[in-house]
Amino acid sequence: MNKLFFPQGTLSIEDNKPAQEIAFCVCGGRKPAASWLNMTAEKLPGTPEFFAADRGLDYYHAAQFYPDRVIGDGDSADPVLWQQAVESGKAEVFPADKNETDLQLLLEILPPDKLWIFSGVYGGRLDHLLSAFETLGTEALQKNRTIVLADEREITVFVPEGVKIKFYPPAEETPVAVSLLAFTEKSKVSVSGTRWQLDETELSRNNPFAISNEMSEAEQLKELPHITFSCLAGMTVFYVAG
Amino acid sequence: MNKLFFPQGTLSIEDNKPAQEIAFCVCGGRKPAASWLNMTAEKLPGTPEFFAADRGLDYYHAAQFYPDRVIGDGDSADPVLWQQAVESGKAEVFPADKNETDLQLLLEILPPDKLWIFSGVYGGRLDHLLSAFETLGTEALQKNRTIVLADEREITVFVPEGVKIKFYPPAEETPVAVSLLAFTEKSKVSVSGTRWQLDETELSRNNPFAISNEMSEAEQLKELPHITFSCLAGMTVFYVAG
Repeated sequence: MNKLFFPQGTLSIEDNKPAQEIAFCVCGGRKPAASWLNMTAEKLPGTPEFFAADRGLDYYHAAQFYPDRVIGDGDSADPVLWQQAVESGKAEVFPADKNETDLQLLLEILPPDKLWIFSGVYGGRLDHLLSAFETLGTEALQKNRTIVLADEREITVFVPEGVKIKFYPPAEETPVAVSLLAFTEKSKVSVSGTRWQLDETELSRNNPFAISNEMSEAEQLKELPHITFSCLAGMTVFYVAG
Repeated sequence: MNKLFFPQGTLSIEDNKPAQEIAFCVCGGRKPAASWLNMTAEKLPGTPEFFAADRGLDYYHAAQFYPDRVIGDGDSADPVLWQQAVESGKAEVFPADKNETDLQLLLEILPPDKLWIFSGVYGGRLDHLLSAFETLGTEALQKNRTIVLADEREITVFVPEGVKIKFYPPAEETPVAVSLLAFTEKSKVSVSGTRWQLDETELSRNNPFAISNEMSEAEQLKELPHITFSCLAGMTVFYVAG
């Protein structure tokens, strides 16, 4: 089991073969709030290893945090920070004219045995977002691994078959919305603690309907309110806003 | 053929069975700039019909434009505007507790023989964006129709097999980026007028690589610079930023 303490709630991942350590990555999409990045990074369990893709370097810097390794073509990071990373031997520099995205290059150097968390992947252009979503989802599916995307506004988890997720918001708070999206053509899920419960329900990618669920009022009255989600078949995207 | 004049460029859709008229929709995602919405709506060919999903009503209002029909649960539109739409008989009101999203409800009332254009679909929450993307892409695929999403920052076209797209930026301008994404598991495409040309090339959904292409310098020297894209098999998403 992995417990990740995000400022907006605790994510518990119940996996048969849990990863022992964390690889935390910041990419060049929407900038995570510096305070969120700082609090999140400090509360990561074990001895996390920090990675940056290009402009992600700037986001670490804003949070006064420094990555262990940096990857990219250096075309979007602050030139001074990029130069420092190169001189310290932390940067892996690729030409700007390449087929792969920075994220795809990053995946090639991430330690395969660690739990991968990505920030700086939301927002921005639709082509970037879809490309990142497909690339990470495919990696999660093919390697049968759980992958987490997060910033202060949204948490997204690629949940393979057989993995259970629990989400505990801070006391007196509830998430704005909880959504489930099939990543494979079909998936089967159960979810409880929510207003609309699903019990071994089939989701299909081309007809999303499990969007904008909420924590149930009954759950909110319990001692440790949380949402429990299980992916029983296929791969499902578990999503929390707010 | 359909020619759509957007402020950031003209999109020409070469289809065997082109739609004669346009259904233009504004949904409740990222607000299109009022000036963009105004200019775009005024230049639509034929006699366009205007639709709003919920908060899309507010976006029309900001552009001093009024939709012909409004759909949703009224929970995110301005209450005064919503009330006016209800009283004028233009609104189709659904309960807030429903399985379908506002967009899915909207699709059920859109005239099937018209070309569908959607604005107010970008940005915001990942679950909303993905749900809209899958819903519209599936509709385009199943009904073998071209569907356009647009605002002042991004244009996205679901392009079925056999359809050709040309994009003409305004004089002295070039798009920030042109990307191609397979919507079906595989698709086959050709693209020219770009720095990286593709000739009957296979794209796969799970390994996106045709991202951030640019108009070629040679094309920019021509009299009427444009990008030509053809979808030869499967369905492909043609995307322009800026």
